[in-house]
Amino acid sequence: MNAPTPAPQLLPEIKARAVPPALLDALLARFGTQFSTALVVREQHGRDESAFSVPPPAAVVFVQNTQDVADAVKLAAQFKVPVIPFGVGSSLEGHLLAVQGGISLDVSRMNEVLRIDANDLTVTVQPGVTRKQLNEAVKSTGLFFPIDPGADATLGGMSATRASGTNAVRYGTMRENVLALEVVTAQGEVIRTGTRAKKSSAGYDLTRLMVGSEGTLGVITEVTVKLYPLPEAVMAATCSFDSLADAVNTTIQIIQLGIPIARCELLDANTIRMVNAHSKLSLREGAMLLMEFHGSPASVQEQVEIVQELAADQGGQTFEWAATPEERTRLWTARHNAYFAGIQSRPGCKAITTDTCVPISHLADALLDSVTEAEQSGLTYFLVGHVGDGNFHMGYLIDPDIPQERDTAEQLNHQLVQRALKLGGTCTGEHGVGLHKMGFLVEETGSGAVAMMRSIKQALDPDNIMNPGKIFTII
Amino acid sequence: MNAPTPAPQLLPEIKARAVPPALLDALLARFGTQFSTALVVREQHGRDESAFSVPPPAAVVFVQNTQDVADAVKLAAQFKVPVIPFGVGSSLEGHLLAVQGGISLDVSRMNEVLRIDANDLTVTVQPGVTRKQLNEAVKSTGLFFPIDPGADATLGGMSATRASGTNAVRYGTMRENVLALEVVTAQGEVIRTGTRAKKSSAGYDLTRLMVGSEGTLGVITEVTVKLYPLPEAVMAATCSFDSLADAVNTTIQIIQLGIPIARCELLDANTIRMVNAHSKLSLREGAMLLMEFHGSPASVQEQVEIVQELAADQGGQTFEWAATPEERTRLWTARHNAYFAGIQSRPGCKAITTDTCVPISHLADALLDSVTEAEQSGLTYFLVGHVGDGNFHMGYLIDPDIPQERDTAEQLNHQLVQRALKLGGTCTGEHGVGLHKMGFLVEETGSGAVAMMRSIKQALDPDNIMNPGKIFTII
Repeated sequence: MNAPTPAPQLLPEIKARAVPPALLDALLARFGTQFSTALVVREQHGRDESAFSVPPPAAVVFVQNTQDVADAVKLAAQFKVPVIPFGVGSSLEGHLLAVQGGISLDVSRMNEVLRIDANDLTVTVQPGVTRKQLNEAVKSTGLFFPIDPGADATLGGMSATRASGTNAVRYGTMRENVLALEVVTAQGEVIRTGTRAKKSSAGYDLTRLMVGSEGTLGVITEVTVKLYPLPEAVMAATCSFDSLADAVNTTIQIIQLGIPIARCELLDANTIRMVNAHSKLSLREGAMLLMEFHGSPASVQEQVEIVQELAADQGGQTFEWAATPEERTRLWTARHNAYFAGIQSRPGCKAITTDTCVPISHLADALLDSVTEAEQSGLTYFLVGHVGDGNFHMGYLIDPDIPQERDTAEQLNHQLVQRALKLGGTCTGEHGVGLHKMGFLVEETGSGAVAMMRSIKQALDPDNIMNPGKIFTII
Repeated sequence: MNAPTPAPQLLPEIKARAVPPALLDALLARFGTQFSTALVVREQHGRDESAFSVPPPAAVVFVQNTQDVADAVKLAAQFKVPVIPFGVGSSLEGHLLAVQGGISLDVSRMNEVLRIDANDLTVTVQPGVTRKQLNEAVKSTGLFFPIDPGADATLGGMSATRASGTNAVRYGTMRENVLALEVVTAQGEVIRTGTRAKKSSAGYDLTRLMVGSEGTLGVITEVTVKLYPLPEAVMAATCSFDSLADAVNTTIQIIQLGIPIARCELLDANTIRMVNAHSKLSLREGAMLLMEFHGSPASVQEQVEIVQELAADQGGQTFEWAATPEERTRLWTARHNAYFAGIQSRPGCKAITTDTCVPISHLADALLDSVTEAEQSGLTYFLVGHVGDGNFHMGYLIDPDIPQERDTAEQLNHQLVQRALKLGGTCTGEHGVGLHKMGFLVEETGSGAVAMMRSIKQALDPDNIMNPGKIFTII
């Protein structure tokens, strides 16, 4: 394997701060049965989908409203103990691991859809509402919420990691879709950012500062997002290619021509094999684009015709149409489950997942060389991509008990990130920095920008209690 | 006139800090002919389109590159003297007024288009490049940059105020379209934020923190923005209505149905009269929607048919089509010049301009009552609106030498903002806070959020030298 630069040390330093019994007593007194120090509960709140293993938090508080959050944060602040928000635990980069100890704030019971303003195309929810629950709640309005990470994540978690998914190529990410937030600060104060107006120039964009701040600046307690009218016509299709390059080049042309494609996903042959097994499908085992077109019937027809032509030029097989909504749902569910299909293909494995995103013209360069390296490494892997955005994920399936496999996977990820940064891209398109990409963040944006992030963190959270040890280190 | 609540005191407190001769000497030594203390130059850099009158800055530095900016800021920082970035001086809220004295940094000579990445739909420019210059530079690529405030503003200024314009309803504002920045911090350090990748979850969103920060957190020295393929088909039309309510209700329906209209502008009868005089047009004197549709020929045709039907239901007259690109340009130029047409309609006047933006279902409530109040006041006014976004501007034309007129205008603005805030909107959709909306900002977002903005400011600019006295006060 071609390994010019050594992979950085990625395991987090564990420096658990003491959690004084007086804090635990105070939390118990305030929260009663909403408070737990049971090991099984703590362990469930001390792991996510990352491959890291870290001791669990000292306790879990199941908050039910904003006042609960404010009170819990105020108590933790009094004792300078870390507070880590928890949604459903689907983060991929170690975001919720208690690397400095502390208390987990489980917001999953804050799961009310607070107001649906269908006439304004907005909805306001509590942070524990999941994306599927939200779409169920707004179904009768003829509107939908497009952001769809693989897991059925919470809106709070999706905001905190600036998540996206398969629809981002047309509808944007959480960055573009969160209009307003309620946030509990590190001091336990409740603030509001943004309004339901579509645009605003009213001061610093605190909404977008909080979106993607991974719980390090405050706890999100309310989220207002945009909704979209369900498209009049929807068509989904798969197209199989003889090579990844052909599929990627088709994608690049679709984007450069400005086709308003709603979804443009790539799955490699490995993924197809895993997905076929997991979801009982019989998709052709080759590089595949899974696409969806939204619009009026005529506009969808136009998009389809152009994309078919582009695909045919690259040797794409005939489009296979998902004729019914049920078939469409089955295909997209399979796509959303690709990560789990990958994990289940090797029992007991963990996935080390990459997440680079590059300017669209460099997608082939970024992706194909990374695949060659993965092939040469001998590791099992899968590749799925929101390629319309220039974003793709490789999942290296490792046995967590074999250090050599982890090292190889981290080395591959390291080379892949270096390549993306050289091409003008980012180390993380949608998963966030967490513990895993702290070193890459400095390489990507420079120490000056990270110093600015650190200054902001220190100004808003001087005792470093909000999810400490994530994104960057505090010196 | 119905005036239940008193208008707040809006004139800024002038607290010019001393500019030591040693700083002026050092700037002269470093910048030579790029440095000026001539009164006429200073006065030109000490006023914008706002109705405020404030003593000019002590000197002007004409920066030519990032190093110039860094050196000027470092010198100013050494003497704790304010630095105020200046583009073309088209801001409307007093953003560039030297309310605390200091040095104006004129970036207009930093006007190079640095790189056009047509294959990635991005372009990188220096901050002094204007929007028209940018579109001229990318014309041959088949791409365009949609954000278009009324003035031919600079990309630096547009970033700093989070500007938008007539295309925002489809293409978003500077918030959605700036991908990356180079910024000189208050310490004179050069940092980079963002990449050319379409999306990213890499740490705090410093790009969007800087966008809209009005020069208070740093000087923007490079801007990377998205470009879009020129639409295959473009159709522009005007439709005249018997009442403002009919035009507004048509707009609300267009947006609620999710029609991807590219531009949807409202002009009231007063504006039409002023525009007809200024641009030698003969538009029907009534409430008018000026619309544009982008897409494939079939998609444009579909949009037009639906909108025509919606307009007809509200009593809209027949659509008047801009048949040729020249005619289209003439119409949009007239729209862009509406502000200046208003100003010129009353020689010697200044405009006090409103900028609220509300959730779309409340647009009629927000707009019609404000018009009634303006009518009752006896002041001359005009109304133009990016109504597709829920954003509209009233321009109250006042004689700056008649305090009573200014008071009346401020009172009207005050009532209009209160109404917008009650309806879930914002006091400024696109012009920024500057000096004029500092009080409204607190009402809109609450003192907690403003305190957070202030903490960020103090962390990044502890000596308060970057455009001090704007957005909020430092206590």
